[in-house]
Amino acid sequence: MPELRKDPVIDRWVIIATERSKRPLDLSIGKSMSRSGSFCPLCPGNEDKTPHEVFAIREGNTPANSPGWSLRVVPNKFPALVTQGEPNRTADGIYEKMNGLGAHEIIIETANHDADALTLSVDDYRHILIAYRQRINALQQDSRLRYIAVFKNYGERAGSTLEHPHSQIIALPVVPKRALEELEGAQAYYRQKGRCVFCDIVAQERAEGRRVAVENELFLALAPYASRFPFEICILPKQHAASFEDAGKQEIDALADILSLTMKKMAVALDSPPYNYMLHSSPLHTEVHAFYHWHIEIIPRLVRVAGFEWGTGFYMNPTPPEQAAEYLRDAQLT
Amino acid sequence: MPELRKDPVIDRWVIIATERSKRPLDLSIGKSMSRSGSFCPLCPGNEDKTPHEVFAIREGNTPANSPGWSLRVVPNKFPALVTQGEPNRTADGIYEKMNGLGAHEIIIETANHDADALTLSVDDYRHILIAYRQRINALQQDSRLRYIAVFKNYGERAGSTLEHPHSQIIALPVVPKRALEELEGAQAYYRQKGRCVFCDIVAQERAEGRRVAVENELFLALAPYASRFPFEICILPKQHAASFEDAGKQEIDALADILSLTMKKMAVALDSPPYNYMLHSSPLHTEVHAFYHWHIEIIPRLVRVAGFEWGTGFYMNPTPPEQAAEYLRDAQLT
Repeated sequence: MPELRKDPVIDRWVIIATERSKRPLDLSIGKSMSRSGSFCPLCPGNEDKTPHEVFAIREGNTPANSPGWSLRVVPNKFPALVTQGEPNRTADGIYEKMNGLGAHEIIIETANHDADALTLSVDDYRHILIAYRQRINALQQDSRLRYIAVFKNYGERAGSTLEHPHSQIIALPVVPKRALEELEGAQAYYRQKGRCVFCDIVAQERAEGRRVAVENELFLALAPYASRFPFEICILPKQHAASFEDAGKQEIDALADILSLTMKKMAVALDSPPYNYMLHSSPLHTEVHAFYHWHIEIIPRLVRVAGFEWGTGFYMNPTPPEQAAEYLRDAQLT
Repeated sequence: MPELRKDPVIDRWVIIATERSKRPLDLSIGKSMSRSGSFCPLCPGNEDKTPHEVFAIREGNTPANSPGWSLRVVPNKFPALVTQGEPNRTADGIYEKMNGLGAHEIIIETANHDADALTLSVDDYRHILIAYRQRINALQQDSRLRYIAVFKNYGERAGSTLEHPHSQIIALPVVPKRALEELEGAQAYYRQKGRCVFCDIVAQERAEGRRVAVENELFLALAPYASRFPFEICILPKQHAASFEDAGKQEIDALADILSLTMKKMAVALDSPPYNYMLHSSPLHTEVHAFYHWHIEIIPRLVRVAGFEWGTGFYMNPTPPEQAAEYLRDAQLT
């Protein structure tokens, strides 16, 4: 019989279709990036095609906005939000609106145009995570901002329009819905039980082991109990921490290690699928330390979201998370 | 400057990218259905390839499960949920689960395999709506069920795997997240203002007119103020009503008329895009009459949902709803 499972943090049910469960190769949609060979504005030598860099990791003394970098962060040339002005929240009849104020930056993850989940190194991930942390710490100085979304889209089907490995940062003047739901769910759990729900998840998952895909000293990569999507993965610090940007060198190193390994195993098991990942950290200027616990959500884009999911917020997942975790544990890197 | 707009019912913000707004043909992804010519289990003559029909609209006295129908409803041969058993809601450590109990039915909308938004007639839509109403009324007799989702997926990119025109019904033993959010939002508005938020939307939209795409005596098809997607449309009854299934003949006729016209205009303006539509009606066995107001949500699937939207529940819409409504008003049916 199919199983309905409830997310422990937000009030969302998922149908886990245990009886027509799909194996990784049934789900694979083939390698997601076609290599076009056309001009790339993110490649070394084309630094004048992007806005001026706001952060970079560079060899020796190479000057800003010239080659010699292994990672660059630049404002998006076509930003979804603009940095100038005030939010000006106003009514529009019964509606409400505000100015599209915020920041939109691109993290160019490596100078190597062709790098992907199989070839990005632990060092590359370390640089990427250091860039995320640096940009969050810089942007949160701006008191107009309330939330910083850090995410990566890989592959056309995951919404990526550029081949060159990159992730994005969008800083917002409001806390988005999904983040609010997580905060409210975690706070309600804390009020009732006096504990962090994510810490309880870590404890139960370590004890059971069935949904753990990868583990190291400081982090756990698990297939969530009420996964919406096949091979959805959540990476959580084992120690309670509300904000990613407070991570020290040891945490960044261990996170680079588990993120690299998880992405490689996913690429092996699912034939380099398109994917999204997204950092869930605490909102800015808000005290949520007691009950919130940052994490990274990874979603390979294997199945299409249809009318039922859009209309209801209720998901049908053809691969039980226990099986997904097992496939990833067994995936052999060559 | 881009605009942030807040949904008046649920706590969701959307970025309306006013400055790089897209016109319909920039968004079109081409006709979405390829005609394969392969065997169709939903076509007349193949009634033995589906489970026995639970409802049909038939000519004269043709027997059940034989040709002569213009619409059939059958249980899904590969259901997401099963009809037998009890919900048995139980704990699983800190998690919660229940049996995948419910119903999953297919509405075969017409005998004509090749019908689409441009060729489905007002009469076809009337039959489809009568079938929705009949099945909701039949399924709500089952006290184990809490919510009935009625939706249509058209085109591969919208999650459809069968060419033959069809919609689906999934009856659930819990109220899904999105429905709960709408109910809670509408109830909070009602508590504060003593009015239905959807009635207030209808009033403001009729007064302003800018976001109205189609209107008839009883219904309004509008581009919502905080549309998540380009050319997203909401069809609302002008008179307050919580449950679609209470609609009488006059309402069904007028709804068939506006649904047919809206889908045709969308097909003309956007070159027969893939789409999802979804009925939002009240949950079962719950008194929500004062504050809830049923409606139909239509989403052409023109843009891909990427990491930012998944991670935050915050959407970026490249077409202001005022422009979308204008394009649809201007779309000429030949």
